[in-house]
Amino acid sequence: MHNFTLSMPTKIFFGKSQIDVLGEQIKNHSGTKVLICYGSNRIKESGLLDTITNLLYENNIAYCELSGIQPNPRIRSVRKGIEICRENDVDFILAVGGGSIIDCAKTIAAGVFHDGDPWDFFTDKAKVTDALPIATVLTLAATGSEMNGNAVITNVEAVNKKALRTSMIIPAFSILDPEYTYTVPKYHTAAGTADIMSHVFEQYFSTPEDIFIQTQLAEAILKTTIKYGPVALKEPENYEARANLLFAGTLALNDLLSFGLDGDWAVHVIEHAISAISDLTHGVGLAILTPPWMRYVLDENNVEKLCNLSVNVFEIPSGNNKMEIARQGIDKLQSFFASLEIPARLSEVGIKEDQLEQIAKIAAPSDTIGSFKELNYNDVLEILKTAL
Amino acid sequence: MHNFTLSMPTKIFFGKSQIDVLGEQIKNHSGTKVLICYGSNRIKESGLLDTITNLLYENNIAYCELSGIQPNPRIRSVRKGIEICRENDVDFILAVGGGSIIDCAKTIAAGVFHDGDPWDFFTDKAKVTDALPIATVLTLAATGSEMNGNAVITNVEAVNKKALRTSMIIPAFSILDPEYTYTVPKYHTAAGTADIMSHVFEQYFSTPEDIFIQTQLAEAILKTTIKYGPVALKEPENYEARANLLFAGTLALNDLLSFGLDGDWAVHVIEHAISAISDLTHGVGLAILTPPWMRYVLDENNVEKLCNLSVNVFEIPSGNNKMEIARQGIDKLQSFFASLEIPARLSEVGIKEDQLEQIAKIAAPSDTIGSFKELNYNDVLEILKTAL
Repeated sequence: MHNFTLSMPTKIFFGKSQIDVLGEQIKNHSGTKVLICYGSNRIKESGLLDTITNLLYENNIAYCELSGIQPNPRIRSVRKGIEICRENDVDFILAVGGGSIIDCAKTIAAGVFHDGDPWDFFTDKAKVTDALPIATVLTLAATGSEMNGNAVITNVEAVNKKALRTSMIIPAFSILDPEYTYTVPKYHTAAGTADIMSHVFEQYFSTPEDIFIQTQLAEAILKTTIKYGPVALKEPENYEARANLLFAGTLALNDLLSFGLDGDWAVHVIEHAISAISDLTHGVGLAILTPPWMRYVLDENNVEKLCNLSVNVFEIPSGNNKMEIARQGIDKLQSFFASLEIPARLSEVGIKEDQLEQIAKIAAPSDTIGSFKELNYNDVLEILKTAL
Repeated sequence: MHNFTLSMPTKIFFGKSQIDVLGEQIKNHSGTKVLICYGSNRIKESGLLDTITNLLYENNIAYCELSGIQPNPRIRSVRKGIEICRENDVDFILAVGGGSIIDCAKTIAAGVFHDGDPWDFFTDKAKVTDALPIATVLTLAATGSEMNGNAVITNVEAVNKKALRTSMIIPAFSILDPEYTYTVPKYHTAAGTADIMSHVFEQYFSTPEDIFIQTQLAEAILKTTIKYGPVALKEPENYEARANLLFAGTLALNDLLSFGLDGDWAVHVIEHAISAISDLTHGVGLAILTPPWMRYVLDENNVEKLCNLSVNVFEIPSGNNKMEIARQGIDKLQSFFASLEIPARLSEVGIKEDQLEQIAKIAAPSDTIGSFKELNYNDVLEILKTAL
């Protein structure tokens, strides 16, 4: 186990009607003028936006809004948010939505203090030195962004999607009411489930080897998603399923699974390259890529780990032919994603063969990616071909 | 799943040589005069105390000491610590040791601000309103006190051992170096392992029923202790074993397993009653009591949960006779504790039959205890008899 520092300062308010703490909590963080960030109309139609603005009004907290933030959030939304903050002396950022909204809000919070373009954070031209306090009202079980310091932003002009990671943008608090996820459409419930599972896999397949406790915790989250993903699809208003899934998403990427290890993250890097050019739903891309990635990296050195996954998570009977057991687990994962009605191939989501080289070039332009198994441009291209 | 608020503000520095951050971190929390709390000579002999005082000296941080804090820490140590703090204008508390030292330090940190006796906190005569910042340097895998707001103190005169729980006394940071646990004697390594497992059981056996994710996480911690407890006993300097056990102890009681549920805690209440009159090592008492408690509470309504424990954690083959499978798991748990060379019966640790009524009276004086299954005085007495 590597040395590590673990800090999880986000306070979580989980359950029905927890939104009631919003005003008091914002005031605890000295918020007087809030930028509410959101995306689609779902939170308007559900009445959540009205609930929030009423709560702010009752607590004498002023607010302005940034709406229309898209999935794969754009750097231009960040720029617009920063402008609104500066014009209105905003001192607190509230993200209402899923990971895209939260990531956009985080980058705005940091960008306000940067005398330059916020894309600089993603190209290592600038470091985050300060950020406005951030809170989130989560409406989708997926990214874990509600309890970590990550933000992923797409730059359409630069044809790139990149990640920022700094403790400065960890939310001060997050409100997680499983009922807010009742209205998530099937497609996004499925994609969110795949996203959670991919986060776990990226940390499950890692180095060094003496990470038994992390491995057990990772399997705990995987079993939860496998049990409740299908239930949430069939019964969108099943509280138990939505609650277990929602917090599985948080725990999958709040450092609980990553302490003391080097995650792999190659699948994420490849998926980011795909969605930079195609605006694919992140979780769908991950679900398509993960089984081909597993088949490609599987070898005699790591068969034990993939075999454990098969036995412990996918209930494949243990036995002597570990390579075969590992393959059966990968097949079962692919069947699971298919059962969630997620497309199985890149060609089904509009990716053409002649785009694969461009994707591989964005993903692995020169260095290798991944740590469980290092992959270069040619490896990535091979994986993309089998995923097509 | 119940609504919950989750806050884990303690920053963890885990691994070899992490003690190097001590001075800087204390200064981050404005510490200028530190009370170092410790117990036995082990930290003197190992050189750890010298390392710490040198680091404080190098960082121009003054310090005074409270030594001789005992296992089952006494309220009189707390009183003495408060006196030292007041006389020396102490502004930061550093606990160096295991749970007993940390619990004593926490109570001192709160007691400094209380105009009265610190035992008042444990009898609901006073509430904690403020506390000095606390940090810990952990030397024993057991209580989880390094990342929570709990403190358990013994009052010898009142023949009682009681718990305090408040966010005010959650450590600001904790340093966990597995190498500091290399010198923990076999008996205390075993007792610590049992303590960790008992914390998990108290949360595993809980209500309501829709706590799948918490149950998976609890099983993850149990599997870790079952794998590494015996290794740490046989190879005290096995870093992998010590590291996995050490963080298992932290995660077993830092709210990661308790969110959204009502833990049982009856075994802890009974053990506290025993150690109030006998000074028994906490983990040993828990190991003795847990199997008899399980056998006593097992019934048709909860057989599923105990059966799951057998199958998922103790590798008992699943089958139709759930009651039998549940009993086999309890037997296997008892064998596991025996393999750690922990005494199996209260009579082996000096408890006499004529003390059982007194213990039951302290544990369940009027109300029932436990939530998974409520127990009254007579129930407790029955469990004690079978544990004798």
